[in-house]
Amino acid sequence: MTDFARTRAAFDLPEGVIYLDGNSLGPLPRGVMQRAERVIREEWGGMLIRGWNDAGWMALSTRVGDRIARLVGAEAGSVICGDTLSIRTFQALNAALALNPDRRVILSDTGNFPSDLYIADGLARLKGEGYALRTAPPGAIGDALDETVAVLMLTEVDYRTGRLHDMRDLTERAHALGIVTVWDLAHSAGAVPVDLSGCGADFAVGCTYKYLNGGPGAPAFLYVAPRHQGVSFPTIQGWLGHAEPFAFEQGYRPAAGIARMRIGTPPVIQLAILDAALDVWEGVSMDDIRARSIGLSERFIAGVEALDAGLELVSPRDPMGRGSQVSFSHPDGYAIMQTLIADGVIGDFRAPDRIRFGFAPLYLDDRDIDTAVARLGRIMAGERWRDARFSARKAVT
Amino acid sequence: MTDFARTRAAFDLPEGVIYLDGNSLGPLPRGVMQRAERVIREEWGGMLIRGWNDAGWMALSTRVGDRIARLVGAEAGSVICGDTLSIRTFQALNAALALNPDRRVILSDTGNFPSDLYIADGLARLKGEGYALRTAPPGAIGDALDETVAVLMLTEVDYRTGRLHDMRDLTERAHALGIVTVWDLAHSAGAVPVDLSGCGADFAVGCTYKYLNGGPGAPAFLYVAPRHQGVSFPTIQGWLGHAEPFAFEQGYRPAAGIARMRIGTPPVIQLAILDAALDVWEGVSMDDIRARSIGLSERFIAGVEALDAGLELVSPRDPMGRGSQVSFSHPDGYAIMQTLIADGVIGDFRAPDRIRFGFAPLYLDDRDIDTAVARLGRIMAGERWRDARFSARKAVT
Repeated sequence: MTDFARTRAAFDLPEGVIYLDGNSLGPLPRGVMQRAERVIREEWGGMLIRGWNDAGWMALSTRVGDRIARLVGAEAGSVICGDTLSIRTFQALNAALALNPDRRVILSDTGNFPSDLYIADGLARLKGEGYALRTAPPGAIGDALDETVAVLMLTEVDYRTGRLHDMRDLTERAHALGIVTVWDLAHSAGAVPVDLSGCGADFAVGCTYKYLNGGPGAPAFLYVAPRHQGVSFPTIQGWLGHAEPFAFEQGYRPAAGIARMRIGTPPVIQLAILDAALDVWEGVSMDDIRARSIGLSERFIAGVEALDAGLELVSPRDPMGRGSQVSFSHPDGYAIMQTLIADGVIGDFRAPDRIRFGFAPLYLDDRDIDTAVARLGRIMAGERWRDARFSARKAVT
Repeated sequence: MTDFARTRAAFDLPEGVIYLDGNSLGPLPRGVMQRAERVIREEWGGMLIRGWNDAGWMALSTRVGDRIARLVGAEAGSVICGDTLSIRTFQALNAALALNPDRRVILSDTGNFPSDLYIADGLARLKGEGYALRTAPPGAIGDALDETVAVLMLTEVDYRTGRLHDMRDLTERAHALGIVTVWDLAHSAGAVPVDLSGCGADFAVGCTYKYLNGGPGAPAFLYVAPRHQGVSFPTIQGWLGHAEPFAFEQGYRPAAGIARMRIGTPPVIQLAILDAALDVWEGVSMDDIRARSIGLSERFIAGVEALDAGLELVSPRDPMGRGSQVSFSHPDGYAIMQTLIADGVIGDFRAPDRIRFGFAPLYLDDRDIDTAVARLGRIMAGERWRDARFSARKAVT
């Protein structure tokens, strides 16, 4: 059994704050500052250039990748960490397209995080020759699969509603039609059990600053199924993906395995911080996380609906169809969220009218949920969000 | 006049170490740890998601970019910081190619840092349609310019020898033939005066973990000349380069100005650390840096040659033809450098036989140079590098 008292104690949350936005930026784990001091003062300051060898900086991308692999059901040696989610999506998409050279279509859904669509569109235009992005509504994505599709690119958990795609079923249906899959796990990693290996997923990407608590701008990760590693190229051919970076050869020869997906010099300090943040996950079972996440989410939905305050659930009602977040719509959603944040319950707002709450079992418990509902109830009862001082502000996160 | 006593005191170098490898990884500035604590504890820990607005995280990429702009002669609003040098080179090259749609050749020199060549080769293959990388020896690059060349991509200072290209002359000759330029300033920024604006450079890229002392894995930068900003696209179309990232539109619309070159979520912690490292540069004149760099390098060359120990200068003898580094060749170069490092003088080795020394005027003075030469002299006189314990080790940096 996962010891949630231990995991809760591992975070340093501000007094009085109920943090329901860990799906956007996870909070600071207590062990991080010490590790940051070590990498900055002892390693950078003390070892200088020798840190690349002596402090193991060069191995961080794959070592941290292996720690993430365990949390998303990936094989050891199949995940690399570094760069941003946008870059990793670009790499995964092009490698996936290369496995299907006779087809030209990337299929995604209209509910996907826009950046994934932008990246796919940009890549298609860069490649020319009829490459294109096609989209279908999330609920119709299965029916949109056909033999013209080269790559199916989906974000498993919808960033606005929490709606969960069935990775196993869609991957199987895609493969039956000769389609290669790219799964974006931005809102899945650390939130729901993911079984990349068991689902036969081809490529996956994800970020680490949400449920994995790696900090603002923490590096992203890329999964390449072992069967594709030998034939997949990094697209952006940086020196650290070379078989022998320090031989300084004129021509590019990719490294063996997942290491070839490395591009430039990795963000050592942010990787070390992420590594420390992942310590919290030792001994944590993703099944326990899922059970507790559903408990927290259901309790929150029941509490908010009992307020009878005009907040309409826009997330799937069936918890099996949701990730670890819940959204409600309200015409004054933006002002309501600003008021709630001022009262110490931090969630976020997504245009045009959605207030969004994430449930991270590592540091939240039932009492937090009840406090959050009670504070929201007071705001709704008094219509306090109408206070003019919030109306002029604009959300940017 | 630049106060070099102040800049020297701003660094926290290990006792007894003479650091001649700041051209590979700059040392730790004293102000960095405090800033790291602030961004981790107060901003991430205390503000949580609100840090994006309240701590100015979103503005870091351009704010830090503007601070770098001053050091490389770039206009305000023309430099963005984030991602790696490989990514920035990829973006710059493709934007440059787009300005010359009727040509297909990227020209570079065989002495360029291999990663730049790998990136160019990978991009050419991704684009297909006859795009290709062509190389010429560094000394023959001017003669290799012709009207088939779309883009001239050069690293101003050669990573192995310090040989300095004439940016003004080559840019002018390139432009006369309708060629767009991409300058890599990896070994220039903070090392030599650069006048991007005055030279009429089109694009430039650089890294910040060498002479700018941003720390291991510090983010790279990209310069786009103001005249090209409105028509240049980021190639990798991430959401933070969108005109309104938080409108979450389905289609990509690039932001105005340099901000469109932003891709994914910026590495906030490393950007904050870099920002603190750049404080050292306040009040520093690049002309003073250049004068002091030449003084230190010339003193070192004279000292080493006076040893008469079989170390052959492979850098240009004329200081005006060099950046801020000097290399010597010796058949036992690797073992000599390992012995020297063990004696507290840190330089590095580049295959097959070169020992390389960088001179960072911010924290080095004449006494350091004399000490380094004296320690090297003792090693050479006693042939101490023959000690077997170093022979089995392999350099990786």
